[in-house]
Amino acid sequence: MERHFDEELKQLKQKLLRMADTSQEMIGLAVALLCDRNQGLAEEVFGLEEKVNHMEIEIEEDVLRLLALRQPAAGDLRLLTAILKINNDLERVADQTCNISETALYLLKEPPLRPAVDIPRMASLAQKMVKNSIEAFVNQDAARAQEVCRDDDEVDRLNDKIFRDLLDVMMKDTKTITRAVDLMLVSRNLERIADHATNICEDVIFIVEGKNIKHHIQDNVQG
Amino acid sequence: MERHFDEELKQLKQKLLRMADTSQEMIGLAVALLCDRNQGLAEEVFGLEEKVNHMEIEIEEDVLRLLALRQPAAGDLRLLTAILKINNDLERVADQTCNISETALYLLKEPPLRPAVDIPRMASLAQKMVKNSIEAFVNQDAARAQEVCRDDDEVDRLNDKIFRDLLDVMMKDTKTITRAVDLMLVSRNLERIADHATNICEDVIFIVEGKNIKHHIQDNVQG
Repeated sequence: MERHFDEELKQLKQKLLRMADTSQEMIGLAVALLCDRNQGLAEEVFGLEEKVNHMEIEIEEDVLRLLALRQPAAGDLRLLTAILKINNDLERVADQTCNISETALYLLKEPPLRPAVDIPRMASLAQKMVKNSIEAFVNQDAARAQEVCRDDDEVDRLNDKIFRDLLDVMMKDTKTITRAVDLMLVSRNLERIADHATNICEDVIFIVEGKNIKHHIQDNVQG
Repeated sequence: MERHFDEELKQLKQKLLRMADTSQEMIGLAVALLCDRNQGLAEEVFGLEEKVNHMEIEIEEDVLRLLALRQPAAGDLRLLTAILKINNDLERVADQTCNISETALYLLKEPPLRPAVDIPRMASLAQKMVKNSIEAFVNQDAARAQEVCRDDDEVDRLNDKIFRDLLDVMMKDTKTITRAVDLMLVSRNLERIADHATNICEDVIFIVEGKNIKHHIQDNVQG
């Protein structure tokens, strides 16, 4: 039975990896929709969101089934409840890419505001963070999880820079205000995606090192 | 042992109610800080956030302990995993009130922009939604959960109105831009608080009626 449980856990991790792949793909599509002004990509993002929503429900049902049937001990229990949370974070990442796509569809009706070079940079960083956070979880790799937390500082810095740049643009030309606010919202969405990856990594560090860094509270695991 | 489990579940629900009370209080304080320009309230919000962070960790540890010791069957399992998610949502509500407080501290350095009557309205609605969502969970009251989902539509409407009003203000006077963007962020934070209450209610409806309305997917519970 122990080996059976390991096999089921492995399959569950594979599902999480697939869900993370889809979420990363959605980030890329949403930002291409915005920056390359390729309207056709919106349907792809919304189609993939349906897929992610089904994945979320399936993973949740799998975890509940495993909890009920296998009655796992402390360590495995913590892994399974972490999967529930990560599942939720990934679904919210996908959600944010839909918000970006909706904003992009508005923006495509207007002339482009400016190259907005920092948004694609922020998006690639967010993609990398989502990828690394799930791989850190699957491989129980605390060093990689720490790297994601460091990347989050860079994302916050880029978000602040984008806000300041866009405020300047608005002040100089009030005709840009609506579009600039929309780009701020996109930047905010990317920053939240990075936050979800960081949440996942805080859980990984908690599991691997038995330390709760989430609220900068240095508790030891008792479980 | 069954009665023992019921008693522990009851205590856990009491803890969630206390956490929800604290989160609601934080919404009120953050908005009073902003609208009454009462700077002293910021420390109160940040102090309560520490409290909520500790409550979150305590509730998570309680759930893990109950899962490990009591090995509950399908229905109770679903309740416990729902508590894990609600716990997370409440912590994020508290987080959003800290974001509002930080923005408010910036805004207090500038002259007031305008009465912003819709922000206090949105805040009271968000408070009511958090209260109702937890009570809907504790009493397994699907009708009340549905009410929260309806209130969320009103919050979305108010958020759109605040955005449009603030865009007008910015267009008319570029000196208001920074402050108007800050107020948009506050409005966004309140909208996200309402979203967390809605997430909780979607879980309640799932548990009580066995229907998953989360992604408008009408699945039946198999658990």
